Amino acid sequence: MEKDFFKVKDLETVLTLIEDFPAVETQIQPLDVCLGRILAEDVVSEINLPEFSRATMDGYAVQAASTFGASEGMPALLDVVGRVEMGQVAAGEVTPGQAVEITTGGMLPKGADAVVMIEQTQRFDDRTLEVFKSVAPLQHVMEIGEDLAQGETVLPKGTRLRPQEIGVLAALGKDKVPVYRRPVVAVISSGDEIVPVDQTPALSQLRDVNSHTLSALIVSAGGVPVRLGIAGDDLGALERLCRRGLADADMVLISGGSSVGSRDYTVTLFEGLPDSKILVQGVSVSPGKPTILAESRGRILWGLPGQVTSAMVVFRTMIRPCINHIGGLGRREKDIEVPAEVTRNVASVLGRTDFVRVRLRSKDDRLFADPQLGKSGLIHTMVKADGLVRVHKDSEGIDKGQVVKVIPFASSPILSDRTLDT
Amino acid sequence: MEKDFFKVKDLETVLTLIEDFPAVETQIQPLDVCLGRILAEDVVSEINLPEFSRATMDGYAVQAASTFGASEGMPALLDVVGRVEMGQVAAGEVTPGQAVEITTGGMLPKGADAVVMIEQTQRFDDRTLEVFKSVAPLQHVMEIGEDLAQGETVLPKGTRLRPQEIGVLAALGKDKVPVYRRPVVAVISSGDEIVPVDQTPALSQLRDVNSHTLSALIVSAGGVPVRLGIAGDDLGALERLCRRGLADADMVLISGGSSVGSRDYTVTLFEGLPDSKILVQGVSVSPGKPTILAESRGRILWGLPGQVTSAMVVFRTMIRPCINHIGGLGRREKDIEVPAEVTRNVASVLGRTDFVRVRLRSKDDRLFADPQLGKSGLIHTMVKADGLVRVHKDSEGIDKGQVVKVIPFASSPILSDRTLDT
Repeated sequence: MEKDFFKVKDLETVLTLIEDFPAVETQIQPLDVCLGRILAEDVVSEINLPEFSRATMDGYAVQAASTFGASEGMPALLDVVGRVEMGQVAAGEVTPGQAVEITTGGMLPKGADAVVMIEQTQRFDDRTLEVFKSVAPLQHVMEIGEDLAQGETVLPKGTRLRPQEIGVLAALGKDKVPVYRRPVVAVISSGDEIVPVDQTPALSQLRDVNSHTLSALIVSAGGVPVRLGIAGDDLGALERLCRRGLADADMVLISGGSSVGSRDYTVTLFEGLPDSKILVQGVSVSPGKPTILAESRGRILWGLPGQVTSAMVVFRTMIRPCINHIGGLGRREKDIEVPAEVTRNVASVLGRTDFVRVRLRSKDDRLFADPQLGKSGLIHTMVKADGLVRVHKDSEGIDKGQVVKVIPFASSPILSDRTLDT
Repeated sequence: MEKDFFKVKDLETVLTLIEDFPAVETQIQPLDVCLGRILAEDVVSEINLPEFSRATMDGYAVQAASTFGASEGMPALLDVVGRVEMGQVAAGEVTPGQAVEITTGGMLPKGADAVVMIEQTQRFDDRTLEVFKSVAPLQHVMEIGEDLAQGETVLPKGTRLRPQEIGVLAALGKDKVPVYRRPVVAVISSGDEIVPVDQTPALSQLRDVNSHTLSALIVSAGGVPVRLGIAGDDLGALERLCRRGLADADMVLISGGSSVGSRDYTVTLFEGLPDSKILVQGVSVSPGKPTILAESRGRILWGLPGQVTSAMVVFRTMIRPCINHIGGLGRREKDIEVPAEVTRNVASVLGRTDFVRVRLRSKDDRLFADPQLGKSGLIHTMVKADGLVRVHKDSEGIDKGQVVKVIPFASSPILSDRTLDT
């Protein structure tokens, strides 16, 4: 065990330290369950997409030159020599003056280099077509490899898979996908006053809000939560739960007990674990200052403030990036930032990064951020909030009317079963 | 079956029509799996939270008046008469001139009305405390009911549950939660050229991109996708799959076949279903004009464009709101909108709402939106995009340099297993 003198670190230092942890293992998963997962290998296209020239409109495949000069008053007259069946290679060849019926997605017949939209034509008789507007070569045609080219790295390793990336994988026939395993995160609540949610707390006790809130946050971040329960303020019990977490999980979160208070067990606990090293003891953020980061034999340990609202901010600003990183995400997740006018002054301390809960409100096409003040432990302030505003460490606060950037909470968490394939 | 003359409808009309569909049934679920679910009943607090006055700092519980006038130079001297154990009701009472040790979250003893922070004190000896700063009554105290008050509607019916709402439910002991069932959405691909993802397409064929992309979008919207497969351009086969969808799902999506082209089976199919009614045939949006909305005996039917990129835009702008609505969401989901400068001119047509794919790029603290042009069927344009810009129907386009509002795609979809409780 190493023991050093620790100074409070700034947020950026913590985020940089996190990047030293290695990623979890990779696995092959069916495409079906890969939404939100992170690619473990570059995906290189083995084919051109499309592999044939396709019509992008319903109409007629032609040689563009056959339509040059056509107009409403002077339509081009073409011979209709056939029809492309979807999913079939067209027989024959389109020569000058000829047209072949085609629908969107159909394969262009040999000789054709453009498609005339059906709206710009009229069938004169069974064999003859009037074309009222000329088309340019390649008009209304998707060329071979125009979407994805053979040999191209289509999706780099470290990409989080959204629905459109799932679509690309489907297009390439990747029904099994190499992804990172989802990081497993154990959650422990500490505190003699904490009782499980299904128990009625005695006066002076509270239900275990943190385990459930943190588990939900872990799911939102793409991790798998394992709830180990409540330790009470007993070092032995806490250590037993923590060792179970180290055995089963990539990361252990202990909430409560990280304050500078009289029962500061967490640091003592972390120091006593095998080959442990305390990396961070105190971060210059508010809320979240008493945060602890440690490691033990390749496992990551976090001590979080006991106040649920503080724990949520620490999760959003430090633990979520850590889950992303060990989960294989190729680069830091970029926060969406929405500009809004702050509706009251917010004081801050120089040298400390503050995160202020705000509610977004739009009026007359302007967006306002109402700071949700009140004691930091009040969970209703998080329920009323739509996001966080970061007050930079070199700022002494925000003035009313100032435009700030709001990092919105996800409004609609996504949950999934495996798609039913019937 | 009703048959009417249909005009292309605008997006707002479609969104209003959607609101006539009834919500799905409700169910009771364990708190654990409720992240992202929608509350089916108002949650009223049966308790005050907290149920007792709590310390919000580590320090000493006192009568505030005992500290009045205290300063560094002239500390107040108090008798330390005990210590509050976490989770225990403090014995005895704090009288003027007395102090009781307390940690964050501890229950204030009788008589005490404030907490002095430990940092502003010094223990003179075992019994005597120096206090260097006065506290006001209620300072560093969370009062009874200050977070959630008994009888208060804490979360209204129709609320989507984020981690903080999960926390509130935990605090109130709601380990079983009334939520709406997740809407079940069947997905059918049509088109003779479409083959399953695990097959190698012949020349002129393509893999079934749409079923997989739409399934992922359904998961992202909180629905349960059921993939029924590929029908080919055969009305009988399509109808068999569609009837299976009607039997098993709340909603059926058929992609392909909704264009004005030669094989427009979808409308014919929908018209032939029991007690069916075509509600929308054509929407004044681009992409997505050929969208069809119908109902049959309380089930919802959508016909989507075959181009996957168009289908994605239709999903985002119409089908996701529809899943939200029948899924019980209490109000329309508010899109987050991020202002950004457009980097090139984008033409649009008056009277039509256009959705332009853009990539967000920040430079020198300014945010730019690069339109991803190229043919609408190219899926790589969606992979490169971070969101959509809406060009209003009363606009003829966007000028380069204009500030627009970007609706970002979710950057990190959330997936979940049940939390492991060990």
